[in-house]
Amino acid sequence: MKGAHEVVAAFWAAAEARDWVALGALVTDDVLYQGPQTREQVRGRDAYLRFNAEGFRSDWHLRVQQIVGEGSQAASWIEMNDEGETYPGLCFFDLADDGRIARITDFWPEPYDLPASREHLVERY
Amino acid sequence: MKGAHEVVAAFWAAAEARDWVALGALVTDDVLYQGPQTREQVRGRDAYLRFNAEGFRSDWHLRVQQIVGEGSQAASWIEMNDEGETYPGLCFFDLADDGRIARITDFWPEPYDLPASREHLVERY
Repeated sequence: MKGAHEVVAAFWAAAEARDWVALGALVTDDVLYQGPQTREQVRGRDAYLRFNAEGFRSDWHLRVQQIVGEGSQAASWIEMNDEGETYPGLCFFDLADDGRIARITDFWPEPYDLPASREHLVERY
Repeated sequence: MKGAHEVVAAFWAAAEARDWVALGALVTDDVLYQGPQTREQVRGRDAYLRFNAEGFRSDWHLRVQQIVGEGSQAASWIEMNDEGETYPGLCFFDLADDGRIARITDFWPEPYDLPASREHLVERY
């Protein structure tokens, strides 16, 4: 059985390849996907594959920045390039006992203005 | 030497306790903090402690949701409660050879509207 780091690496490789068969094999039948920022969720492999195949029609490409795996949990930081715009995507994963992904929590942080309260304490890069 | 998971758990305990001495002992002299959303950064222990002590004056409290550590890397998901409002904070950490935190990348994802393109593919929770 693969470790959590390796499963998540395979997950992102399958997503980038639009290989929905490979992606489906990496998640449990009752996988739960949640996006806390919109409070959207998708339950079950079939709905989750449809969500991936049909929900994001642009010519996006992803590059893994970092994956950290420990026991049955993992986190990933990807950089998404979506028609010229690049932005980070962060996911936390819980794996089931059989090594498949049972839960995905997905975050897409967006740029915001630096608060004046800490302007004097930071540099910009 | 503590593992990355344990170091990050101690980091958040020190932050919640406003124990800047303990927090300072967990980071390298030349620690680099970056916030990609604002493109702010802070370099070095002294500046980083000042940033934490002086940049966030509200009565915030944090609860660790998940920590994942692997080798010299870790990721954390906290829930921040800031004067009644609760929101997630996500960090990726790189540790130096001596087990101290050398790099912190900090993300604060905010709520956004569900795109119409995937409304039919998700539930709300």
